[in-house]
Amino acid sequence: MTGQRHQGRLAKLAKEFVRLPGIGQKTSQRLAFHMMKANKEDAMRLADAIRDVKEFVTFCVQCRNIAESELCEICQDPRRDRSKILVVEEPSTLHAIDQCRGYKGLYHVLMGSLSPLDGVGPSDIRAKELELRVKDGEVGEVIVATSPTIEGEATAIYLTKLLTPHGVTVSRIAYGIPVGMDIEYADEVTLTKSIEGRRELS
Amino acid sequence: MTGQRHQGRLAKLAKEFVRLPGIGQKTSQRLAFHMMKANKEDAMRLADAIRDVKEFVTFCVQCRNIAESELCEICQDPRRDRSKILVVEEPSTLHAIDQCRGYKGLYHVLMGSLSPLDGVGPSDIRAKELELRVKDGEVGEVIVATSPTIEGEATAIYLTKLLTPHGVTVSRIAYGIPVGMDIEYADEVTLTKSIEGRRELS
Repeated sequence: MTGQRHQGRLAKLAKEFVRLPGIGQKTSQRLAFHMMKANKEDAMRLADAIRDVKEFVTFCVQCRNIAESELCEICQDPRRDRSKILVVEEPSTLHAIDQCRGYKGLYHVLMGSLSPLDGVGPSDIRAKELELRVKDGEVGEVIVATSPTIEGEATAIYLTKLLTPHGVTVSRIAYGIPVGMDIEYADEVTLTKSIEGRRELS
Repeated sequence: MTGQRHQGRLAKLAKEFVRLPGIGQKTSQRLAFHMMKANKEDAMRLADAIRDVKEFVTFCVQCRNIAESELCEICQDPRRDRSKILVVEEPSTLHAIDQCRGYKGLYHVLMGSLSPLDGVGPSDIRAKELELRVKDGEVGEVIVATSPTIEGEATAIYLTKLLTPHGVTVSRIAYGIPVGMDIEYADEVTLTKSIEGRRELS
C-alpha cells in the first residue's frame, strides 16, 4: 500500500498531462493540483472542450484544414481567391499563416513532407490530391510554404516538377532575416537564404 | 465570417488550455492541435481524468491532504507514526515531501500561511484544527515545514506559541545550501539560514 500512496485519480490525471508535448513531470503535477483547486465549472469546461474537439472537429475533405463540417470555413468562404493555393505541411502552419490575414487564397495541407530516409514518399503526403485540385483548372498559382529544412526543400522541388506541367505557376515563400532581427545575430543558413532571395530595388 | 475563422471548437479548447498555470498562447494552441491529432482514446482519457478528479477527489477531513474517501491514505495507514505531525502550507508540498519516503509520520495542511498584509490571520489557516489534533495527546512532535518566506516564518512562530503549551515539541525543518550546490552560488538569505542552522559535528 505504501508504494501506492497518491496513485489515485490525481496521479492518473498527472500521468495524462505528462503525455502532452512540452509538459514535464513537475508541470504535470502542478497542473493536476491546479485542476484539484480549480472550480468545478472551469475544470469541466476543459474536459468538455477536449471531448468536443474529438467529437466534432475533423479535417476538410478538400484542403485538410481543421473543419467542423465536410469543407472547412476557408474552402466554404465565397470571398476567398480560388486561383491561389498555399501549400503547408501541417494544419497548425495553415492556422498561423491565416491569422496574419494577408493571404486571401485557399490552402492545401500535405500532412507531412517528403523524407526518403524515414520512408515518406510522394504517396504518403497529399501531393496527388493537390495535383487533382490544380488539374481542375481554376488554380493559377501554387505557393509552397514548406519549412526551410531538407524535407521541406525536397517537397518544394517535387511539387514544382509535379505541378508546372499543368500550366500553373509554382512559387515559394521568401526565407530570410526576420523583421526586427539584428542581421548580425542571424544564423548562416538564414543569411544565405536571405542573400539568395534578394530582390532588385526599383 | 472572416473574423470568426477558426473560432470553433479547437479555438475553444486552446482558450481553456491557456487558463492553466504556465501555459501561454502559443503552447495552448500547440496543445489544442496535439489533441486534434492524438487518438481518441488518449484524448478521452485526459478528459475523463479531469472529470474523475473533480468528481471523486476531495480533502482528508483530518489533515487536508488530497483524499478519495473521508480520510486520506496516509491518515488511514496503520504503519504511520502517529506521534509526529509535519505541517505544510499546501497539499502539493505534502505530496513532494512524502514522495521522498524519508518521513513516516502524519501531516497537517494549513491551506495557506499567515499574511497580515493580505488579511490572512490565524483563523484563516487550519491552525485551530492542528491544535485540536495536538490536544488529543498522541502527538509528541510537530515539525513545521512552511516556506522560508516572511509568511512561512510568521506561521512557524505562531504555531510554536500555540502548540508548546500543550507539552509538544515544535521543530522546524532545516533551510540551507541545497545538496550538490556550489556554496559560492548560494544567495545571501540561504547562506545566512545555512550558518544559523549549523550543527556541531561529533
